Formats: sequence, C-alpha cells, structure tokens
Amino acid sequence: MDIERLCQAAKAAKYRIAALSTEAKNAALIKIAELLDKEREQILIANAQDIAAATAKGVSIPMIDRLRLTDARIHAMSEGLKQVADLPDPLSDVLESWERPNGLKLEKVRVPLGVIGIIYESRPNVTADAFALTFKSGNVVILKGGSDAIKSNTAICALIRRGLREAGIPEDAISLIESTDRETTKQFMQMREYVDVLIPRGSAGLIRSVVENSKIPVIETGAGNCHIYIDESADAAMARDIVINAKTQRLGVCNACESLVVHKNAVDRVLPGIYAALAEKSVVIRSDEASFSAATDGVRIENATEEDFAKEYLDLLISVKTVSDIDEAIAHINRYSTHHSEAIITENEENAERFLAGVDSACVYVNASTRFTDGFEFGFGAEIGISTQMLHARGPMGLKELTSYKYRIRGNGQIRS
Amino acid sequence: MDIERLCQAAKAAKYRIAALSTEAKNAALIKIAELLDKEREQILIANAQDIAAATAKGVSIPMIDRLRLTDARIHAMSEGLKQVADLPDPLSDVLESWERPNGLKLEKVRVPLGVIGIIYESRPNVTADAFALTFKSGNVVILKGGSDAIKSNTAICALIRRGLREAGIPEDAISLIESTDRETTKQFMQMREYVDVLIPRGSAGLIRSVVENSKIPVIETGAGNCHIYIDESADAAMARDIVINAKTQRLGVCNACESLVVHKNAVDRVLPGIYAALAEKSVVIRSDEASFSAATDGVRIENATEEDFAKEYLDLLISVKTVSDIDEAIAHINRYSTHHSEAIITENEENAERFLAGVDSACVYVNASTRFTDGFEFGFGAEIGISTQMLHARGPMGLKELTSYKYRIRGNGQIRS
Repeated sequence: MDIERLCQAAKAAKYRIAALSTEAKNAALIKIAELLDKEREQILIANAQDIAAATAKGVSIPMIDRLRLTDARIHAMSEGLKQVADLPDPLSDVLESWERPNGLKLEKVRVPLGVIGIIYESRPNVTADAFALTFKSGNVVILKGGSDAIKSNTAICALIRRGLREAGIPEDAISLIESTDRETTKQFMQMREYVDVLIPRGSAGLIRSVVENSKIPVIETGAGNCHIYIDESADAAMARDIVINAKTQRLGVCNACESLVVHKNAVDRVLPGIYAALAEKSVVIRSDEASFSAATDGVRIENATEEDFAKEYLDLLISVKTVSDIDEAIAHINRYSTHHSEAIITENEENAERFLAGVDSACVYVNASTRFTDGFEFGFGAEIGISTQMLHARGPMGLKELTSYKYRIRGNGQIRS
Repeated sequence: MDIERLCQAAKAAKYRIAALSTEAKNAALIKIAELLDKEREQILIANAQDIAAATAKGVSIPMIDRLRLTDARIHAMSEGLKQVADLPDPLSDVLESWERPNGLKLEKVRVPLGVIGIIYESRPNVTADAFALTFKSGNVVILKGGSDAIKSNTAICALIRRGLREAGIPEDAISLIESTDRETTKQFMQMREYVDVLIPRGSAGLIRSVVENSKIPVIETGAGNCHIYIDESADAAMARDIVINAKTQRLGVCNACESLVVHKNAVDRVLPGIYAALAEKSVVIRSDEASFSAATDGVRIENATEEDFAKEYLDLLISVKTVSDIDEAIAHINRYSTHHSEAIITENEENAERFLAGVDSACVYVNASTRFTDGFEFGFGAEIGISTQMLHARGPMGLKELTSYKYRIRGNGQIRS
C-alpha cells in the first residue's frame, strides 16, 4: 500500500478512536490478547521465516535471540495487552478547572495526541506493546519496524486488526508499513499532514536519523550516557553495590551507568572496592591518571580519552573522571551526559540537594541505581520509551505522556470588551 | 557577532539563569523596568530611525503604526515587566510526589526549557515582553526580530543587558541577532546543539517557514481559522452578539472568527439578524447557496469556494457553511480549522457536550466568543503565544508552558533486582 494512502487512512480513523469509551477499548485489548494466544501458530510460522532469513544473512546470535518468538514470549505479549487493559484510562481525568470573574467556566482535559508514528528495530514484541499503549490512550498508531522482523510484525499486526474488526472498531487504529527500505522511512517522516508525532525506538543512530530528517514533531528517546558521582562522603559499600548494579545488571540498556565521576578525596577510600568488583564482572576501566592508584591486581585500567566521557558504551566498559569538588562534577555531567539519568552517592545532604538541583537530566538520583529509570519502576504501569528532550515529556513515558490536552469553556453569552 | 558564538554564549549562561532565586529575578525585572522608563530617550531616537527608514521604503501606514514607540508605549512595556515580576515563579512548584514500595521517594518538579529562540516580526514591544516571560521562567532567550524594527530592538536589548549587568546577572540571559537577512535566520534554525526550543511569532508564512526549516524543536503558534457553529436551538440575539464580537472586535488577531457553520433549521430564524449586524460593520459574507435567503437589503453576500472555508481572512470577510446536523458541523470544523478556537451557540446541552468532545481544537467554547483565547483572559497573567500543536503545550502559553520538568529521586542504597 502506498505510504500516503496508509497515513490518510490512519488520520481518517483518529476521531473515532479518540471517541471510544474506556470499556470498548479494554474489551478490544482483551479480545486481541486472547486472539494472539489462540492463533500463536501463525505468529510462530512467520517468525521462523524471519529467523531463517536472518540466519542466512549472517545476523549475529544476540540479534537472532532478540528476534525469536517462543510460546512463552507470545504468552507474555498477550499478558501485556491484558495488563494495559487494567490500567486507568488517561483520558478520563480533568486536569484543572476554574471559573473567571466574567462567569466563564474553564476545564483542562486530556486528549489523545492523534496519529503516532513509531519507528523501531528488530524486537517483534514491540508491535503488540506499542499498539496497546497508543490504543489505550486513544491514539492511532502507524508502525515501521525493522526488516529482519517483517514477517513476524505482519502476522501480529494482522491478528490485532482482525481483533479490532471483530470488536467493531476501525482496524486502521493500527497499521504497519510493510516496505522496510530506507526510502519508505524517509517518505514516512514527511507525512506531517497526517501524522501528529513520531517516536523512534532503538539505537542512537536510528534516533539521530529520525531527529535530523523528520518534518513531523519527534519525541527523542533513549540514548543514555548515565553518570554516577561518588561524593567525598559516599558510603563505600553502598557506592560499590549501586555502581555494580547500574553498570552490570544489564549492559545494553539506556539506563545503565556508563561513567563514574569521583571526588579526589574518595579515590583511595571508595574506588578500590568498586574497581575490584567491576573486575570480577570483567568490566574494563577507562580513567584519567588520578584514579590509577585505586586499581589493585586483576583490575584492567586504561587511559580515558575525551571521547570516552561522551560515550554510551552498552558494553563491559566504564569511564572514570576525578574531580576536585561537586561543582566540577555537576559541570562535567551536564557537559557529557545525554540528560537521561544520573546519580550521586553521598552522606552529605547539602551536596545531595545541590546535585538534584544542578544536574540537568530527566531523572536525578540520590543514593540509588540509575537502573530505576523505567515506567514500571516509576509505577506508571507501562512504558513506551524514555524521553531525553525538554519539550512535552521527559523521562519514562507511560499512558499520560501519550496525550495532549484541550480547554473546554462553558459560557452563557460572554463577549470580550 | 557570529551566530554560532552568540548561541554558545547563550547556552553557557543557561544553568546560571536556571539557578537564580525568585527574588533575584524579580529584582532584576523591576530594575530593568525602571531603566527602560528612565532611558526612554535612547529608545525613541532609535525608533525614529526605524520609522524614517520604513517610511522611505514605503512601508504601509498600519505597519508603521505597529512599529512606532511613544512615551505611552514605552511606559506600558515597563509596566509589563513589573507585572511579570508580580507573577508567581513557575519553578517553585512540586508537580507530584510519591513513594515506591522499595522506599524510593520521587518528586516531579518544573525546570526551565533552557535556551529559547523567538523569531518575530515588526512590533518592538515584543522584545521586552518575550524577555520578561522567558527570564521569569528561568530560561535564556535569543531574539530574532524583523528588519524594520532592528534599531529599536537593539536599543531595548542593550538596556535590558545593562540592567542585568547592574543586577549582577549574566547579560547573555538575552541576546538579539542583529543581522536580519534570511540566511542568518536559516543558520539560526540549525543551532540545535545550543538552542532547546524555537517559538515563531507572527504571520502564517513566517510560522510555516520555521516549521519547515528548523532542526530545533518548534512550538507552532498562531494561525487561527476559528469557527462558530450556530446550532438549531441557538438563541438568536446571543448568536448575533457573539459573532459580531468574535469577527469584528479586532480583525487582525488569531482568535477572531473567520467562519460560521449554521444548522439548516437556524438559517431563517437566526442568520438574518447576524447578516444585518455584519453588514453594519461592513463585513462581506461568502456562503454556500443555502444561506443566501437570510441576506436582507444592504448585506453583501457572495458564493464561497472551498478555499474560503480554509482561509484565515484577518479582514472584513467571513465564510458561511450550512449543515444538516451537528455531526456534519463537527466534521466540517475538524477538516478546515487550524485547531485554535471554535465555539457552539446552542440551548441544547447534549449538543454542547457533543461539540466540546468532538471538536479537535485547543479551546472549544459553548456560548462564548472565541476572542477569549488569550493568556490574560484565561487568568495566566501573561502570554508568549497560542500553541496550535499537540506536543508540549496547547492553547494560550503563559509562564508554566515555558517550562519542562525533571524527576528527583531520593533513596538509601536501592538497587534494581
């Protein structure tokens, strides 16, 4: 299908989707969840074709693993849809209401963003997940997935559309762009007339390309060069446990710690324990000279370049920068971070507050792991991505962050004088 | 000054401006207000040069009037700064706070957007106004005004910078791009590395050009093809008064009414009074055939083309479309409006609610004039513009709409399992 016609069809459905009752949306989500479970064979067959093609192409084993669907993964997708049905409808809230001296009654209420485009990479479970969140918040979604998962995505999308049809809801609430070449993606990013917002999910390269080429307003997500600052007064055991958690619990995620900033007076007291624990996890350290003294036997330590400080490794590497005071730490972080998540480890309350106020990131922590930056960990019950921009939403985006608002104003003949 | 260096200097100031106390900001605003009043001669001399140049160029009388500063207008500018000093600081609010089962304490707090670029046209009072609002909300502003007002803007900006300096605040809180050619504007719109948000203020053409060319996230403002729908049950006198107010109180503003939509059963009962009143104000009507019967002697009525329905006239013209029911009215409005402000005139509560829910605009009114879409009329105490987009802010933008937010999370050693 021609991309412009697909976008037109999505726009044509948007006011009907926006007007659906909470009950109608929840019933459809549950019906679709059951359909995915029942018809999983179709998905598995399509997925096997994707896996075979990817294997023949020489795609790496970890990538194939991300691509692979199993009974358990399809069941988890289905359960995910049911969980979204259980979440409160973000459109039912009145955000504010007030009356003016002239008698006008104003109400600020949530409304859907409209048509949301999502561009993502290989994981086919994103297809069902992104549909559930955009649909529950009253939006229409157009998905553009990666080429490796195209048959899986097509099968999942077809089942969702069938479920919508059976529930009496316009199936254009979801559509999938089936052509996966770059030219189509570029064309898609020009569809400002039909698409209200574009959300890229995936690698830093994908996100940069969308930000640079899209005519549609973009919500920038994802890239996380997250820092932990070890203050002079840090508790050594707490610092070690948090750094190990933030760096090594999962390497490839945007809220993993990529860089330590260390007060010079904490180098001898706190760093040796952290370095030894990192070495146990096979993490290589790239540091300025001042911290080399903290490296005991078995620790792999190398000289950091300026490039290291700016890098989101997503790997068994961490950079270390020593500083003379907390202000230098804050300035270093604001310069090199991607404004995602940063933490301070300190026993000094004044420094904690200084860090919270001065660090310009979506999520700023005192004495906790950066890994908590996550819609579920925040208690949102869902997450479509983590925004690293200033406009609209910042940090974990749940259902509410997929909405805009409007004002309803009730009068009895007021005119302006 | 080279545009990139100017943007770098603005970015270098942003964390110091963000950290200013409410008291320091208010004191500076009052000092600058006094300085503008005291040194008004400098502004008037610069303005006289602008006026002379514009007159020599053959600029139209209304444009010259918008450009002209007088003692009274400079006094109003100065008073405006004092009024902003009186408004509450949007950064002092904690928006939400909650605790997670693991003991993490979360707080969502407002933060400035950062560096805001504003591109505007000829009115030099915008210079002081835009500075006051961006500064009070903790932002740095870079202004790019129109070429006709360049000497006035330069004089005002120099006084503001002097006031900041005297108050001990980095003067780069405001800067003015002094080169007014198009190439510089284009360059400015590429400065994503330094500028967080761009807000265009002015004609539809200016806004379109910024939306299409900017690499910086844009807040789209302004264009208003506002509709009033006269329902079958409308009170005829109320409908007439509201239409006359919304169409003719000020012709050149974005919240003026440009189009009527009329229920076919209201044509004979309600329209004749409206048409006669519009004729008294010299407004020409462009309608479909079905409403011609309502035109009495002296009413100028012409056939509407499809183009008329999409047009923001800002002139003594109004389009009229007749419909068979409220759903047709809502569909017509959602198709042709710029999603700014629309009103229904009705005595039927069910239709009022249907209209409020179904019309996709920033501000939707029942029985009131669209002219109320305004930061002051809403009680915000200020206005930087009226957003017509879905992302970030919608409708009148005051101080709060010039902010983003971040999460502060306090723990005592939490790690993710």
